[in-house]
Amino acid sequence: MSLSAYSQLLAVFTKLHHFHHLAAIASWDQSAMMPLKGNEARSQALAEVGVLTHQIITDAALASLLDAAEQAPLSNMERASVREMRRQWALSNLLPSQLVEAQSLAGSRCEHAWRSQRPANDWSALLPNLRRVIDLARQEATLLSDHFGTSRYEALMNKHEPGMRCDELDRIFADVKSWLPGLVQQVMDKQADETVLQPAGPFAIESQRALGLDVMKLLGFDFDAGRLDLSTHPFCAGVPEDVRITTRYREDNFLPSLMGIIHETGHARYEQRLPRELVHLPIGRARTMGVHESQSLSFEMQLGRGPAFLSLIAPLVRQHLGEQAALQADNLARLCTRVRPGLIRVDADELSYPAHVILRYEIERALIEGDIEVEDIPALWDEKMRASLGVDTRGNYQDGCMQDIHWPMGLIGYFPSYTLGAMYAAQYFATIRQQTPDLDQRIAAGDLSAVMNWLDTNIWSQASRWEISELMTRATGQTLQVSHYRRHLEQRYLGS
Amino acid sequence: MSLSAYSQLLAVFTKLHHFHHLAAIASWDQSAMMPLKGNEARSQALAEVGVLTHQIITDAALASLLDAAEQAPLSNMERASVREMRRQWALSNLLPSQLVEAQSLAGSRCEHAWRSQRPANDWSALLPNLRRVIDLARQEATLLSDHFGTSRYEALMNKHEPGMRCDELDRIFADVKSWLPGLVQQVMDKQADETVLQPAGPFAIESQRALGLDVMKLLGFDFDAGRLDLSTHPFCAGVPEDVRITTRYREDNFLPSLMGIIHETGHARYEQRLPRELVHLPIGRARTMGVHESQSLSFEMQLGRGPAFLSLIAPLVRQHLGEQAALQADNLARLCTRVRPGLIRVDADELSYPAHVILRYEIERALIEGDIEVEDIPALWDEKMRASLGVDTRGNYQDGCMQDIHWPMGLIGYFPSYTLGAMYAAQYFATIRQQTPDLDQRIAAGDLSAVMNWLDTNIWSQASRWEISELMTRATGQTLQVSHYRRHLEQRYLGS
Repeated sequence: MSLSAYSQLLAVFTKLHHFHHLAAIASWDQSAMMPLKGNEARSQALAEVGVLTHQIITDAALASLLDAAEQAPLSNMERASVREMRRQWALSNLLPSQLVEAQSLAGSRCEHAWRSQRPANDWSALLPNLRRVIDLARQEATLLSDHFGTSRYEALMNKHEPGMRCDELDRIFADVKSWLPGLVQQVMDKQADETVLQPAGPFAIESQRALGLDVMKLLGFDFDAGRLDLSTHPFCAGVPEDVRITTRYREDNFLPSLMGIIHETGHARYEQRLPRELVHLPIGRARTMGVHESQSLSFEMQLGRGPAFLSLIAPLVRQHLGEQAALQADNLARLCTRVRPGLIRVDADELSYPAHVILRYEIERALIEGDIEVEDIPALWDEKMRASLGVDTRGNYQDGCMQDIHWPMGLIGYFPSYTLGAMYAAQYFATIRQQTPDLDQRIAAGDLSAVMNWLDTNIWSQASRWEISELMTRATGQTLQVSHYRRHLEQRYLGS
Repeated sequence: MSLSAYSQLLAVFTKLHHFHHLAAIASWDQSAMMPLKGNEARSQALAEVGVLTHQIITDAALASLLDAAEQAPLSNMERASVREMRRQWALSNLLPSQLVEAQSLAGSRCEHAWRSQRPANDWSALLPNLRRVIDLARQEATLLSDHFGTSRYEALMNKHEPGMRCDELDRIFADVKSWLPGLVQQVMDKQADETVLQPAGPFAIESQRALGLDVMKLLGFDFDAGRLDLSTHPFCAGVPEDVRITTRYREDNFLPSLMGIIHETGHARYEQRLPRELVHLPIGRARTMGVHESQSLSFEMQLGRGPAFLSLIAPLVRQHLGEQAALQADNLARLCTRVRPGLIRVDADELSYPAHVILRYEIERALIEGDIEVEDIPALWDEKMRASLGVDTRGNYQDGCMQDIHWPMGLIGYFPSYTLGAMYAAQYFATIRQQTPDLDQRIAAGDLSAVMNWLDTNIWSQASRWEISELMTRATGQTLQVSHYRRHLEQRYLGS
């Protein structure tokens, strides 16, 4: 009886996996291949499969199967599998469909209008739409928090970062805030004396693409199980069995694309190395969005912008883009670690980035908990940007609180994952360095096995088998500690 | 009540359309984009959506809705729409699922083995697998013919060419056989004295692609609703709202790819111009496979290999591939109409092609009707190749009766559509020429509107509204007449 419930659950989730596969490939195609006029039919087809998967996961029989499986004598692995099935089930079943529809509608409307309101710097036009979006997010947060017994914001954040608590995040971010502004200032003072050569373009797109492919190969991307293509906004998508990453090229500057490719390759290798025998089940997916980001940042920040990796790829860069002094390893390292606090999160350097995230976390948390209202955002934004990065945003909504798509589309609670990912990655590399003291020499010599084997054993192959705190403890001997992140930043940017 | 039945049918077929969309894009991706290791997951996902659409169309409620709609007072258009729904329903509902599964299994096994048996010229190894495939096809033919009241072969042919009768086909093909061998001989004698220059390659693939895109543009392909990509075997796929055609390039010879692109563009424009308001319904699809082929052959044979069109594109060819005498219009025309009877259907010239088709029709028809057995094929093949094209195939199975994938995979009754398409196309152009006496001058001057407007008005926009004989009569004033086809061939190849 009980085994039978679990077997039936396997069948249901396998079916869901197949439909998600089709939706994932059709969505990738929509962003990377589809011509303009294909969009309406594609959107309808994707909506249809969305309705179908929603029907499957909200079927009353599934609820009974989960109840039965939770009472059954299962192996530890099966129990963890049911835990992740229940998690996915809950997110689809706890919310009344009217609320889901209202959110989808309000999000689409707000995002669509935002696309023209942002360039027009028109905050007052965004206000009513955003109020509606936040109002519905508060309703969602209340329903989820009642069920999970968390705070309201925590309930939203746990959609992306299950297992992370707000009090832990508060402690972590308070720690960062206590030293980050000082560190940024110190680094800027130090870098004021540095000479950095700007590489002289143009850099042919075909050469940049060939360089990107070579670097992906070096990083172990499996080209028999994935592709590199073009899109307006770079992303990693597809399915674990066939991972599609994208980039975009600028002829005047090859670094954004190269670093973007390294970043997406980190996401891709996680997906490509998820355990194949579990890939159709919730337990077989990436642990959290923060852990996913920790892979892209392990590749881009820990490896990619570090001097050892840059000395490894500098000859490759010159081979594809031509000889010039600016493409020597030490100059590339300076280019890749230039700290310049600015207005825009997606353009931020590694050191300023967490300040952008913490500000958003504090504001969206206060919004969801009801401590502030939407009209309070601009003043708070300016106050926090001034305090953390010394930047003035008064009157500049488009490069201030209107810059991100997240809030207009109703995506609340996602920002912390970016910086959690950076911190997880720093902690992985602290562990790897302890186990492999000559890590940098190995990397410089082209031997990435210490990094790749560690990530494979400790993160990729573990998928969602463990809750995040146990994953980190098993992998690094301790739960998330900010100290590794701080040490990484000080080491890289102050050399101390 | 009755209107309600039709409305409910619309909802069911719209849902099917959405799932077909996802399957079509995922299948295109599988052939044109997908890396090797993605195949297993893709096949499983496609099988899952196949199961789903089969469930939808075999739902008992659908049968009742069709019964009710057929009794209801509907407009002519709605009645035609229900007719086409019933047609699609019948093909999915008349066969027991055990038979469908057995066919799928036997076809996969036979085709898979054929892939190595053909190069090994191993007819005796193919025999047992092919016997099983033909045995199951005979069972299918019996069930379908009992329902439709046709002969058994006709029932299979009507899956691809609904509305075509075997007695009509017999009359048509007997006509062709009475003059084709003589015409082939006459043309070969005439061409023996011709001087044809061979274009000297290599032709860079990027230049060939740019030429192909220019010619597609000239032919009205809508690049906002479709793409050109690469694949091992050229095809036209995707969905009407977003048509994906493919080609492959040979550096030593640009003509196969160029003519292939023109061919697929004909398929593509039919799909792109199907009436958008009906595209989600069976009535909104291409009329028959022969009509589909008549579009690709209107483009490739009637237009593409004709002297007027070749004189139009010759400057374009030289612009992309470089100046040489072999790329002058008159030499291109000789290259495009060279008659060389040979063993292989897919390499056959326009004039020999019908001989390959008629031979296959006669053999597969006799097989399904039980007049011959599988072991009789090679001797019959040789006898017919000798009679029609003067070619000896004894002992050469791989370039004889083992050359096509159709029979191994269980696709019986499809071959006639190729030559019906050529004949439909000739009849369209006879009509167009009557209406536009200076057609060739217009084409040579770059004005293709007479052709495109005629096809759009008479074929593309009509989709499956009329049965094939009515479509032809409305478009050309008469049902299919072989005389137009014969006159086209004589005119082009004898200039008489």
